[in-house]
Formats: sequence, C-alpha cells, structure tokens
Amino acid sequence: MSIISSTKKSYIAGFLDGDGCVMYQLIKRAGYKHGYQIRASIVFYQKTKNRPHLEWLKTIFNVGYIRNRNDDMTEYTIVGLKNVEEILKLLMPYLRLKKPHAKKAIEINKLLKGENNLNKFIKAATLVDDFKELNYSKKRINTSKELIKFLRQNKLYPRND
Amino acid sequence: MSIISSTKKSYIAGFLDGDGCVMYQLIKRAGYKHGYQIRASIVFYQKTKNRPHLEWLKTIFNVGYIRNRNDDMTEYTIVGLKNVEEILKLLMPYLRLKKPHAKKAIEINKLLKGENNLNKFIKAATLVDDFKELNYSKKRINTSKELIKFLRQNKLYPRND
Repeated sequence: MSIISSTKKSYIAGFLDGDGCVMYQLIKRAGYKHGYQIRASIVFYQKTKNRPHLEWLKTIFNVGYIRNRNDDMTEYTIVGLKNVEEILKLLMPYLRLKKPHAKKAIEINKLLKGENNLNKFIKAATLVDDFKELNYSKKRINTSKELIKFLRQNKLYPRND
Repeated sequence: MSIISSTKKSYIAGFLDGDGCVMYQLIKRAGYKHGYQIRASIVFYQKTKNRPHLEWLKTIFNVGYIRNRNDDMTEYTIVGLKNVEEILKLLMPYLRLKKPHAKKAIEINKLLKGENNLNKFIKAATLVDDFKELNYSKKRINTSKELIKFLRQNKLYPRND
C-alpha cells in the first residue's frame, strides 16, 4: 500500500461507514486443521455506473477484486486476514460506525496469529459470532456452536462442557 | 456551523458519497410566483440503531431534522437552498461521487439568487431535471417541461417555442 494522506484515509473511512461492509465468517473447509476457516472480508458496493470509483479505491489498497453483479451493482471485495487487518488499522483513527468491527477484527486476528492453537481458534470463532449482530445479519449458518459440535464429533475437541 | 477540521470534512464527504443523497426537486406550490418551488435537500440514511451517528452529524451542521421511519431506518434531512449550498461548499474539495451533484447545485443556486427572474428560474428548472439522472430516480413527476406548460397555461410565459 502506498502512503495515503489523512484526508484520503478519513474519506475512505466515511465511505466504508456509509456504504461498506466488514465481515468475518466461519466457513466449513475439508482439509482444514479444525474443519473450519475464519474468512475475513471488506466489501464496498456501488451502482455499476460508479465502478470507476471502486477502481480508484483499488488503486489505493492494491489488493482485492472488483466484479459486476447481474443486478446493476458492482462489488469491490478484499479477502484475507492480513489484507483486512492492514486496511482496518489504516482507517481505524477515522472510523466511526465500523470502529467496533475493526476492533473485533484485530482481536480475532491476534488470536489466529502464531501457532494454530485450538482453544484460541474456538475463542476467535466466538468473536466471529459477534459479527452477526454488528452487521444485523438475519442468517448465519455457521457459528462457534457448530464448530465445537464438529470438533467433538471428530474427536478433535476433548473438553465435554 | 462551527469550524470543521479537514479530516472531519473528508470523512463526511466519504459518508455522503456512500450513504447520502443530494436532491433538487420541482414542487408545485400554490401562491408561488412561478407556480413552482425549487426544493433542495441533503439526506443521510441509517438503520435506526445508528441514529446517534446522525445526531453527531447534526451537531456539526446545526441544521436539519432527524426522523425515524417505520421501517427501522432513520433519516437526517437538511432542506433549503442556503443550507444545502453551505454544506456542499464545505465538502466540495473532498467529494468524489457527489461532486457533479454539488457543482450542479451551486449552479442552480446562483441562478436563483437576486431578483426572481423567470428565465433564470426556467434555466434552473432544466438543471434540476438533471438530478433525475444523477440520482438514477425512476420517477420524477415535475420537470421543467411541466413548469413551462403551467406558465403558458397561466399566461406567465410569453415565449411560444
């Protein structure tokens, strides 16, 4: 990421607060050590007419991909714990509505760093659950409850509480 | 309006670009000199849960009103040519998506200043028409065409072209 002025960072923070989405999700993944992946993403939405605006944003972050949906909307999506953390840390001082999201995200990422510890992963998964309320999502299929159930069924989680 | 830092202005510009609406409309008004009023407004929308964010914005602008709709959304609306112009001029250097709206708005306001000249009013009304496309509005009942028709019917507009 190049050097970004404070007014540009605060502009993007306002734009993310108004129009963007910070998401953490538990995704079931065969072959993953704990059976699940924690997926981090930031998404910006615009009418396809305004796609150049999203392309401008992408030249700033230098990560992610832009796609036109078939309903006249375009999405700019940045995926990955590291990418998402970098962007949120950059915008943190200026974020308002999405500040709780950013704090929670950084907390999750901290738990996932270093050795792939099961208890830390479960703790991270419970923080991922909180994004349901932060984003007012109606449906969220995988929660930390499902993760623990899966771990128990596969004898990966010894505790029986 | 109090003194506002450039990062705050750029934050609000980003928020307006992402979530807000700048609108100019022709409203039929009995008793108005030309039969119509040109109404300017800026609206910010948020889930009612985020009403405090809109209240924070209102403490900055010191104009407008906030109301909860009955669909769990809250609107912060600023009405009036002067109020709208003041805010847009403040945000102008930082606006991106809404910069064409802001430029058009200031052009309209310039035409409406000073003596209430009919030709200038008609010219302003044609610029108001452009907001239909700027805002992708599907329906817009009153256009400058209706204004001219009304003026002719009421013998207020002499030209017959």
